[in-house]
Formats: sequence, structure tokens, C-alpha cells
Amino acid sequence: MDAEIIVVGSELLLGQIANTNAQYISHRLSSVGINVYYHTVVGDNRKRLLEALEIACKRADIIITTGGLGPTMDDLTKETVAEFLGLELVLHQPSAQAIREYFTRRGRTMSDNNLKQAMFPREAIILPNEVGTAPGAIIEKDGRTFIMLPGPPYEMQPMFENHVIPYLAQKGNEKIFSRVLRIYGIGESAVEEAIKDLLENQTNPTIAPLAAYGEVTLRLTVKCHRAQDPLELIKPVEDEIRRRLGRAVYGVDDDRLETVVARLLKEKGLTLAVAESCTGGLISNLLTDVPGISENLLETCVTYSNQAKINRLGVKPETLEAYGAVSPQTAQEMAEGILKTSGADIGLAVTGIAGPGGGSPEKPVGLVYIAIAMGGDVEVKRFHNQGDRKRIKFSTANTALDLLRRKLLEL
Amino acid sequence: MDAEIIVVGSELLLGQIANTNAQYISHRLSSVGINVYYHTVVGDNRKRLLEALEIACKRADIIITTGGLGPTMDDLTKETVAEFLGLELVLHQPSAQAIREYFTRRGRTMSDNNLKQAMFPREAIILPNEVGTAPGAIIEKDGRTFIMLPGPPYEMQPMFENHVIPYLAQKGNEKIFSRVLRIYGIGESAVEEAIKDLLENQTNPTIAPLAAYGEVTLRLTVKCHRAQDPLELIKPVEDEIRRRLGRAVYGVDDDRLETVVARLLKEKGLTLAVAESCTGGLISNLLTDVPGISENLLETCVTYSNQAKINRLGVKPETLEAYGAVSPQTAQEMAEGILKTSGADIGLAVTGIAGPGGGSPEKPVGLVYIAIAMGGDVEVKRFHNQGDRKRIKFSTANTALDLLRRKLLEL
Repeated sequence: MDAEIIVVGSELLLGQIANTNAQYISHRLSSVGINVYYHTVVGDNRKRLLEALEIACKRADIIITTGGLGPTMDDLTKETVAEFLGLELVLHQPSAQAIREYFTRRGRTMSDNNLKQAMFPREAIILPNEVGTAPGAIIEKDGRTFIMLPGPPYEMQPMFENHVIPYLAQKGNEKIFSRVLRIYGIGESAVEEAIKDLLENQTNPTIAPLAAYGEVTLRLTVKCHRAQDPLELIKPVEDEIRRRLGRAVYGVDDDRLETVVARLLKEKGLTLAVAESCTGGLISNLLTDVPGISENLLETCVTYSNQAKINRLGVKPETLEAYGAVSPQTAQEMAEGILKTSGADIGLAVTGIAGPGGGSPEKPVGLVYIAIAMGGDVEVKRFHNQGDRKRIKFSTANTALDLLRRKLLEL
Repeated sequence: MDAEIIVVGSELLLGQIANTNAQYISHRLSSVGINVYYHTVVGDNRKRLLEALEIACKRADIIITTGGLGPTMDDLTKETVAEFLGLELVLHQPSAQAIREYFTRRGRTMSDNNLKQAMFPREAIILPNEVGTAPGAIIEKDGRTFIMLPGPPYEMQPMFENHVIPYLAQKGNEKIFSRVLRIYGIGESAVEEAIKDLLENQTNPTIAPLAAYGEVTLRLTVKCHRAQDPLELIKPVEDEIRRRLGRAVYGVDDDRLETVVARLLKEKGLTLAVAESCTGGLISNLLTDVPGISENLLETCVTYSNQAKINRLGVKPETLEAYGAVSPQTAQEMAEGILKTSGADIGLAVTGIAGPGGGSPEKPVGLVYIAIAMGGDVEVKRFHNQGDRKRIKFSTANTALDLLRRKLLEL
């Protein structure tokens, strides 16, 4: 079964927002064996939406729209799809009731135009909106499935997961399954070199490398019967890749370096404290995105000024004077200082130059020192990261998390 | 002139990446008066790309593709466009030379397939790639403009800015110009209520409200002759909106709360130190994304554990015992503590429950206290934010930055 995604919204054509809905839906459809061959974005315009529907019907079995289900005059997806299919809109009482209750719960009065959101063709399966007011709908007509979803991602996603995926999963016999291997600390060409023969002889699973922001991913994709376990087909290839790349493979699918570090800290029952300078709190921010990290992360000091490095971490003024804030000596004292003053089991410290100012021929923008202190030992490593300020912060934070991960794996 | 953007890449149809190229190009095209009515995404597939080109030619004067210009077998955009237009590909010597030099500079040997990137129709205007190896091209044929750009955003964007925008700017006589007003601290419906009459009577500029992640934006868009100053048409409407919404309008266009706070700190010559708990370093991370902030931000303590709140900030154990870590009392002592121990002019403190665990009926997930200490005064405010862990962190960080911004405006 082939699907086309039609995202309705003039704000996308103005470049105001990115089309994350098409990405999300595509990603999820592939997991239930549905191919997506086209994304179309069209404005809030009846005539152009009609044309897009006509084109989509020529090339897809499943047509999924997002956006244009709201209460305003601009919202015309449902009206246009109904017109296209020759169906009449009538008030869906349970939806009208749910919308009224939505407003009552919030102590707000409902304006009448909100009931427009409860108008659907009689033939439609209504998809309740658990987060907002506009329900979605599925309509089967002439061998095609039309699925209309709201535009805001936080409304669309739960509706898609809870109602659309189960609906579609029972339609096909074949499924496509992907597993992403995540790799950090070696470059794309080195990865490709190491698995060259596997890349050249790939069949099922296929292997697709992608490099972005210092990380390399390998997407292993298998096609199999829906009753089959796709992981069985993936396992031998994954095992071989892991054998060759070793610890550079840090995780799979939605793993992030911070989630892997958090898991390792938990497994080993260790506490961490962080001293940041050029990353400005990003390492801490990434780690605290992981639920439950408060049991293992005691604290972070973002010692941006030299004075803070001295006061909070006990970095010696002489060290700063002699070697500068961006030096292996300062990184070492920061790591030792955060370890000692926090009482944590591990101290991680980062100092560097994020730019755009502050660089020099000896210490260029992107120069970074990362130190890990544990017990009586400190290890300091030097890196030179590239890009603008945000990119240097990001790659530095990830490099630090990766070093910490490798350290934890050794314990 | 109407444009259609065709993004070529199977990775988009698998949901592996978001279509940021279409967003970027759309945003920039509107500034030179070119309407975008459709985005199409199609895989690396000759037949389907041919069909997409055929459809695009029926509805657009300018067809812009991204992706598929690289050296591999999968890269077939140029070949397919040439086939579609009935043009022959020949080696473009200057491009071949540039690609050879690209490899030489990096001390790498060039494999022959790289020369595929230098093959173009004789009729094409070649767009040099200043960052990577694949040049782009512009072809004028039968009254239509075909523009082919590379897929990686960091290659596409400079090529678009330096070569495509100047090329297109001289084609049209009309331009569209947008200015975005950014609003924080009041909801979408309150904004719409306050400017209801302006929304109802909008002509040129048009006013488009959008709410996302706690912030409301109003996009003012004017159409005018390319010689005209669009800001003159926008100004009276913007002034009236600002008169009604007051300080809730925090900035325009690419302003962020953190850039506005950084600007105000700089203007007023004040230093800041931050004590974070539930935001986990996010406030600090946002502020340190702003170049030059190191002159005003001294340090941040992410005091995640109670012990860190006591050690680093001098929060009293009795306060934590009696009121808990998430309380106005603790927020106040955190703000006073960071002010005193850092020596900064302003202390900003945040404590709350980001979830998913840790909530109770009295102190639910999302409960947050924000305190600002300055001179001898401390102000504490209570908020209840909604959503998952990351969203609560994000809205809490922004609420804190907004409070700080309003405080700085009062000084």
C-alpha cells in the first residue's frame, strides 16, 4: 500500500514552520509496511487543495492530510475533502459534546464557530482529539483511504499513534521495519570503509548510512511478512556491524548519548557532577531531559567567568594566569574541583572557545579540553570542533558525553 | 511569479530528516516577491521525479529542486531534469577543476564518480558550491526557470543566498515582505481579542496569528512594488499592535527571549547569575547561545540535589525540610544565594517539578517557582506549566527569561 501525505497550511509555504508532520507520519508509516512516495504541501486554498487531492488519488491508496480542521474560515480541509468525495457534512453529536466540555473544563465560553469542528461526513470514522478541540476522521471511498488529522503536532501525534496506526496496521500483509544503529566518535568515511563489503552486498536488510552533526547512523531496513519478526532478519547484520565498530556503536533507534549515559550511571549506581564552561549548560540540559536523572546527577556548575571557576571549583588563580581558562591544566582542575566540592563519584569538566569571538592563532575558536575525574585519576583530552557557536557547543557537549560513556563502559 | 519546491530524497519519505530546505527556500522567496504554492517531496526515483516535474510545470514558473546532485548512482536529479527538458549533459571544466582541487586541499584522492557532479547541460548557468563538491545550476527553458540545488542545508543555503536570490530578485516587480511580532506572557485568544478589529479589517499588511510553545506570533505581510519600502506600510499597524499589547511584545523576526535579555543586560551594563533546578541548565544553555553573553553572565549553578542547593547557594536545610525544594521559600533563598555567592547584579532562580515522576496532589508536575533577586529585593512568582518533561523545562525557562526581561525593562 502506498501513501501520500498532504500537509495543508500557508504558514509552511511562507517558511514559517518546518514540515515536521510529514516527517513524523512517514517515519511511523514505514514501520507498518506502508510506502510513502510523495509529500505535498498546499496552502489553505480550496482550489489548490482539490487539485492536490486529484493528483494524490492517481498515485496513492492512502491519502493523509494534516491541518485545516480548526474553527476558522481558513480551515477548509474537511469541507474540501467532502466536496472532492461528494459527501455531505453533518453535525457529529459526540464530537460537539466533547468540544463543549473542553471549553467548560477550562472555564471558557465556546464561540459558535467551534462547532464547525464537529461537522463530518456521515460515512467518516471519527478520531477523538485527546489534547485539543478538532477531531480527525478516516473515510474509506472507492478503494482509497482518506485520513484527516489536525495540524498541531502535539494533537496530531497522539491521534496518529492511538487511532491511525492500529487502523492501518490491519490493512497490509507486508511490513517494513527499520532499526537505526547510532555511532559516535568515528567519521562517516571510516564507518563506510569498515563495512564496505556489507554495504556493497546489502539486500534485505538494506543499510543506509547518514552523517549529521558529528554522529553517523546506519539505518537497517527489512521488508517481511507481517507475521514475521523483522529483528531476526536484522540481527546477523547488526551483530556483524557491532563486531567491526565496537564501542563506537552507542545505541539504537531513539537512543541519545545522554540517555545512554543516564542508563549506564543508573546501572552502575554512580553519581555525576558537571563543570561546564563553553558549553554553557548544554551538557546539563541534555542530561536533565532524561526522566529520573536526578538520582544520578547531583549538580552542574556553569562556571563561565574565571572568578566562578576559582570560587566554585577551586581552580587556582595561578593556573588561569599561567595557562589560561582554555587549557588542559584548567580542565583538569575543574574536573578535580567539581568532584571534590560536589561529593559525586565522577566529575566531568569542559572548557573551550565557542566563538565567534575569543579565538587566537594559538587557541582557535573550537578548541576544547574535556576532563573526567574519578577516584584519584583525571584524564584530559583535546578536541578541535568546527562550525558556528551553537554547533561547537553541541558537538562539544556530545563529545563529552561520549567520552563519559566510554569511561563508564570500562568500569 | 509562482514557484514550486521539489525536494528530492528518499530519506525524507522515510521520515529520517525534516524538510528544512523547503522551509528555508520558502521563507527567502517570499522576501523577493515570489509566491510558493506547493512543496513536493519525491524519492530518488527517475520516473516519479519526471512526473513531479510535469505536474510542477503546469502550476509554477520557477521550479526549484534540492538534493540528488551528488556523485552516487542514487543522485539523479540533474540527469532527470536534463531528460525532462531534452538537454544533453556535458562536462563543465571549471566545475571539474574545482572538485579536483576540493580533494587535493583535503589531501584525499578523488574517485572518478565525483566528476559526475561536474556534468551539466550546456545551457545551464553553473552555481559554484563554496562548501561542498556538487555545484548547482539554473536553466531557463520555454519561459520557465529550473533551479537545482544540493541537498545538505549548509551547502544549499550559501548557494541560495549568494547566487539564486540575486538572480531571482531582478525578475519580479512586486515583492512580499513579512515582519513577525513576537509575544510572550499572554495567550493566543487574549491577543486576538485585543486586536480583533485589526484582524477583521486587515488588507495590506495582512496579520496572521500563530501560537506555539507558549509564544504567540503575529506575522505582518505586505505586498508592494520592489522599489517601495515595505516597513512604511507595516509601521502604522505594528505601532497600533504594540500600543495595545505593550510589553508583551518582546521582539521581532528572529529575536528570541534570550537574545532580548542578553541585549538588555548589555545595554544596562548588568551582570547575571542563575540558579536552576527543574530546568536543568536550559536557561543557561539558551543564554549562552547568544554570542558575547560571557560579559554579562557570570555563572549558573544547576543545583539538582538538595545538598547542592545547601552547599552552593546557602539554602537553609530547615527551609527545605519545612517547605520542600519546590516552594516559594526555597526559590527565594536560591535567588538570594546565587546573588550573594556569585557577586552578580541580578540573581535568577527556578525550582519546580518537570516530571514525569515527583508530583503530588499538592505539588503537581508542572508546578514552578521563579525568583529574581536584585539589590535587597526578591520577587517570587508561581506558575503551573503543562506538557511532558521537555515541554515543562522549555516553558519554564522561557517564563523565567520573560520575567527577567520585564524586570530589566522596569530598570
